[in-house]
Amino acid sequence: MTEQKATNVHWHEGDISREHRAKLLGHRGATIWFTGLSGSGKSTVAVELEGELSELGVLSYRLDGDNVRLGINKNLGFSAQDRTENIRRIGEIAKLFVDTGVIALSSFISPYQADRDQVRALHEEAGMDFIEVFVDCSLETAEARDPKGLYKKARAGEIKNFTGIDDPYEAPPRAEIHLHTDRQTLSEEVESILALLRERGIVTA
Amino acid sequence: MTEQKATNVHWHEGDISREHRAKLLGHRGATIWFTGLSGSGKSTVAVELEGELSELGVLSYRLDGDNVRLGINKNLGFSAQDRTENIRRIGEIAKLFVDTGVIALSSFISPYQADRDQVRALHEEAGMDFIEVFVDCSLETAEARDPKGLYKKARAGEIKNFTGIDDPYEAPPRAEIHLHTDRQTLSEEVESILALLRERGIVTA
Repeated sequence: MTEQKATNVHWHEGDISREHRAKLLGHRGATIWFTGLSGSGKSTVAVELEGELSELGVLSYRLDGDNVRLGINKNLGFSAQDRTENIRRIGEIAKLFVDTGVIALSSFISPYQADRDQVRALHEEAGMDFIEVFVDCSLETAEARDPKGLYKKARAGEIKNFTGIDDPYEAPPRAEIHLHTDRQTLSEEVESILALLRERGIVTA
Repeated sequence: MTEQKATNVHWHEGDISREHRAKLLGHRGATIWFTGLSGSGKSTVAVELEGELSELGVLSYRLDGDNVRLGINKNLGFSAQDRTENIRRIGEIAKLFVDTGVIALSSFISPYQADRDQVRALHEEAGMDFIEVFVDCSLETAEARDPKGLYKKARAGEIKNFTGIDDPYEAPPRAEIHLHTDRQTLSEEVESILALLRERGIVTA
């Protein structure tokens, strides 16, 4: 666990509860945590799901590796320690969104199981839904897609600590949803997530 | 400015635009940045405003010194450097909320003008509303209120780097709103903020 440096602080329950906000929005918040290799299709699924949710009148927000790394996590690199802190901060931000009633769509490689488990624990301790979605495809498929040309650079040694090449990816053993983007359609993938959101009563539309 | 460590990243425009979300919610996002001494009344005003906004059907969320410091910023203390990083991260989180369409109510001492100016610049560069609210009262009044007993501890030397005692507070010279909590009513204070939100067309209710 990250060391707590600030003393003299304690958790405030806001006057406006999570239940109030859920009533205002017509749905409750949740974190949908996409994990998988670069090029596995995390962002593609997240963008499509965001569009479907919007059509249902459900407020969601994508936390994206690229976006967040240009903002709050711009002072973090790709060492194991920085990756862990990256995921920790994103998990805490996702929690704030869930508390607001928003469905946070977190789309990061997030290669280490311990980091994902810590984010899950943060949510579950607070009584919040954490849905881990393993966006799975073979390294060969991801590398063939190479949408940002990053595998090519990693193979050439221009990028170090690249997941799948010279940094490990730990596949989640107990993800709530396991997508196979090399043999499912995008529509099937999004529907399987929506089905779980409805089953849990997070979304009723 | 904070150094950008991650390379190979670029800003993604989500498929769902800020305008889409504003339409879904019926209002647009904005950051209301409360700044002032401990005990000046920042949280009191923020809680009251949150309640008023909720009654108007407007989604807001309080980012609070105590809450955030127990979560995303738990690895930061109260040195000048850590205070700056604390405010930077909060500013980036507020931006994410504004992008989502939520009114972020940021309630932190945030004693340094340069830090507040940097958060303002982050918002204005992105075309987002940043409303600085100076929650003003004399040190004597704040110290007499001492709701958390912190001034007492600071005077006794049990807390170091305490704003107003052994760390400076830089009053904002150009805050959009200047509240005087030692001579205004809470209702007057909240109304002055709501009036500005309506004047800017952020809230139409």
